[in-house]
Amino acid sequence: MNNVYVIGVGLIGGSFAIDIKSLYPSCNVYGIDSNSNHIEEALELGFIDSEATIQDLENAEVVIVAIPVDATLKVLPEVLDHISDETIVFDAGSTKEDICLQVKDHKRRRNYLAAHPIAGTEFSGPKAAIKGLYKDKTNIICEVEDTAFKLQEKALGLFSELGMRIRYMNPKAHDKHIAYVSHLSHISSFMLGKTVIEKEKNERDIFDMAGSGFESTVRLAKSSPAMWTPIFEQNKTNVIETLDEYISNLTHFKTLMEKEDFDAVYKEMEDTNHIKHILNGIK
Amino acid sequence: MNNVYVIGVGLIGGSFAIDIKSLYPSCNVYGIDSNSNHIEEALELGFIDSEATIQDLENAEVVIVAIPVDATLKVLPEVLDHISDETIVFDAGSTKEDICLQVKDHKRRRNYLAAHPIAGTEFSGPKAAIKGLYKDKTNIICEVEDTAFKLQEKALGLFSELGMRIRYMNPKAHDKHIAYVSHLSHISSFMLGKTVIEKEKNERDIFDMAGSGFESTVRLAKSSPAMWTPIFEQNKTNVIETLDEYISNLTHFKTLMEKEDFDAVYKEMEDTNHIKHILNGIK
Repeated sequence: MNNVYVIGVGLIGGSFAIDIKSLYPSCNVYGIDSNSNHIEEALELGFIDSEATIQDLENAEVVIVAIPVDATLKVLPEVLDHISDETIVFDAGSTKEDICLQVKDHKRRRNYLAAHPIAGTEFSGPKAAIKGLYKDKTNIICEVEDTAFKLQEKALGLFSELGMRIRYMNPKAHDKHIAYVSHLSHISSFMLGKTVIEKEKNERDIFDMAGSGFESTVRLAKSSPAMWTPIFEQNKTNVIETLDEYISNLTHFKTLMEKEDFDAVYKEMEDTNHIKHILNGIK
Repeated sequence: MNNVYVIGVGLIGGSFAIDIKSLYPSCNVYGIDSNSNHIEEALELGFIDSEATIQDLENAEVVIVAIPVDATLKVLPEVLDHISDETIVFDAGSTKEDICLQVKDHKRRRNYLAAHPIAGTEFSGPKAAIKGLYKDKTNIICEVEDTAFKLQEKALGLFSELGMRIRYMNPKAHDKHIAYVSHLSHISSFMLGKTVIEKEKNERDIFDMAGSGFESTVRLAKSSPAMWTPIFEQNKTNVIETLDEYISNLTHFKTLMEKEDFDAVYKEMEDTNHIKHILNGIK
């Protein structure tokens, strides 16, 4: 593998670059980023060799698009305009329907693989990039049949070398399910953080009384608004549906407490304990 | 230290026993538990030396009450009935107002220290007990002035040996703040788990698509209903208030999405990112 171009040298793109450089030490990795500080940081961290531009992509063997999903809608068609016939382009966006629609009729559609590696942390930027981020993680591939077979093979080979397991899904199903298991968690966490901050004007009180449980549920509230706002925008319909159901479940729980029906409160929790068995497989 | 009686040999009581045995290898640690399987497990794990009953407490130097808070209301006065003048009793309950009220006029009130170590995991039972659980954790002490000075000293000395930092608070303030930073997190997590389980009948889909973010926000939904139901019951007024505010914040977020005001959605998240600085101190 040679001439890998990473567009967006943050947590996601940077972690791909780190693992690719470790697998292919002689591979040239180029970085493209609208933030010149990020390019400098990525060069210093050593996971890219030099800066490049969209115009250079005709030399690319692999292009990884790892930028906010609103920017992807704009940049991905430009990327496809500039690559060669042999280039494989994949993205890492947390929405798939709008992105797939955007390039549906592009003459180089077959050079693009729609991907969503379910991996990340609450941090962002080049310094957040880590080795092995993708190991044992799921990568959801959409519309695989619309990617040229040989190019699919190249991308899937790389994912396999990174230790990922693959699931195939259509973009509509992806966006619907991911609203539940990812997008809703972020909003529940952000609003939990907001509720506590609003109440606890005196931060020492939060700091001193908060334990690891609070930290765990509020962790995602550290996430980047620049990354998450366009995700919520593109997946608006599904996310609003999940919020409706979540709010309705919370309201029901509150009503049970108001009615002092603590047997029912117990049962709500007991039924949900079942999540243990589901989560046992994650990590 | 000798003759320590642990009432409730689960995660919290067991972790105290483990650390006390490590600090005082020759200390006799007795276990009292309504669940005889738990006593057997605790004996096998070796963190108690023998089983005891409430009637044996006149020999106790220290009694640790680590049972669900509804059971504490019943058991704590019985404990105080049976101890000697020199015994210090402390609890570990996540509510303080009702418990302090319950023993307010007990003739041995001065033998009791109302404590809430902010420590735990989502697991329960003797096997969940771990060494060092209390290291660097906060222990909130209520109504310290109502405990005999020499007995305070003994308990605080132990907490210090376990590595805990102490905060003093009145029971009303404790219950109000803890509703925000602990009780609400548990409900937000349980209802998130419920929302996702209800939607995703096909568990493989959750399993495959859920990442570490979902796992983190839903972790507390594994918690014990037997422990949490009486906490919510005793802290009903405060918890309902936090739920009102949480639901209102979620509804506002949803309204912003429905109005497609994504600048405001961005700002909601940006303002809450501030939680980073608050959380930096926790661990």
